[in-house]
Amino acid sequence: MTAKEADGLTVVGIDPGSIATGYGVISRAPGSRVRLLECGVIRPTKGGALAIRIREIFDAVTELLERYRPDVVSVESVFQGKNARSALILGHARGAILVAGALQEIEIAEYTPVEIKKAVVGHGSATKNQVALLVQEQLRLREPPSPSDAADGVACALCHLVLGVDGQLPGALPHRFARSSS
Amino acid sequence: MTAKEADGLTVVGIDPGSIATGYGVISRAPGSRVRLLECGVIRPTKGGALAIRIREIFDAVTELLERYRPDVVSVESVFQGKNARSALILGHARGAILVAGALQEIEIAEYTPVEIKKAVVGHGSATKNQVALLVQEQLRLREPPSPSDAADGVACALCHLVLGVDGQLPGALPHRFARSSS
Repeated sequence: MTAKEADGLTVVGIDPGSIATGYGVISRAPGSRVRLLECGVIRPTKGGALAIRIREIFDAVTELLERYRPDVVSVESVFQGKNARSALILGHARGAILVAGALQEIEIAEYTPVEIKKAVVGHGSATKNQVALLVQEQLRLREPPSPSDAADGVACALCHLVLGVDGQLPGALPHRFARSSS
Repeated sequence: MTAKEADGLTVVGIDPGSIATGYGVISRAPGSRVRLLECGVIRPTKGGALAIRIREIFDAVTELLERYRPDVVSVESVFQGKNARSALILGHARGAILVAGALQEIEIAEYTPVEIKKAVVGHGSATKNQVALLVQEQLRLREPPSPSDAADGVACALCHLVLGVDGQLPGALPHRFARSSS
């Protein structure tokens, strides 16, 4: 256990998107398993002006961070084969999320999609469905978080525990994330 | 004069960039020429974390908008031949700027680089130097705004007067922007 964890650790994970931003809030008390506190999807008003939609993401993330006061916001650093146009729009959403975290002076961690998949599933080419199933298993949920954007948000939070806190190498599931039947 | 201008009009123009964000504040009182109130460049701390740099842009734009309470924020909608990586970073800066404007419920206008050049210089392929020179002429400045990022911010504000308020077609300099010797 790191010094940081003495009082437990709360992480908000965020998978940014201009249409759907998934998020998950997890917490781990000293000596306990990690628990899912909340997950969901932020969906800005369809057809609204870009500035309004980006503000809606900012407002929703701000509310989430104010409510949970997490130790860390873990944000997917998205980037694989996007074209420049969609990258620009995605950047707007990420910008709003980073500002929300920075204004509350919360530590921000960023992980690539490959890092997140390796940390949660064990390999970087996992499908969305595999990510959702292993998120379900690791958090002992009755069913996988739905929709997949929410599961991706939770996966991003879990990734921070694996890579940012426990310091495991990518691909190695930490013991406390071992099969729930253990 | 439009109804909107009865009390004069203040426009903040912004040319977003993750390294240098240029801005210009212009004002036009009823029946008067347009005046430059301020221009400059926002330069986030070099080498800082992305979230911190993006927050610095957000804070600087917020301060500017609180100080001038403009009727409109005119933001360059940047996009020409950027690669996906630089588009993503640029999107972060724009996201922070749009959130700053939306939080203060200020009208946001967006113009492409070609629209701005057409509105200020008369053709869409104008150089940065030409833009700076015509900004100087139109605002009767002793010298062109410097550096060019600041001139681009002012040009973006002027573009809103030409295209968004006066409703001139691109390429046609409005009378009030005619040569200063007239």
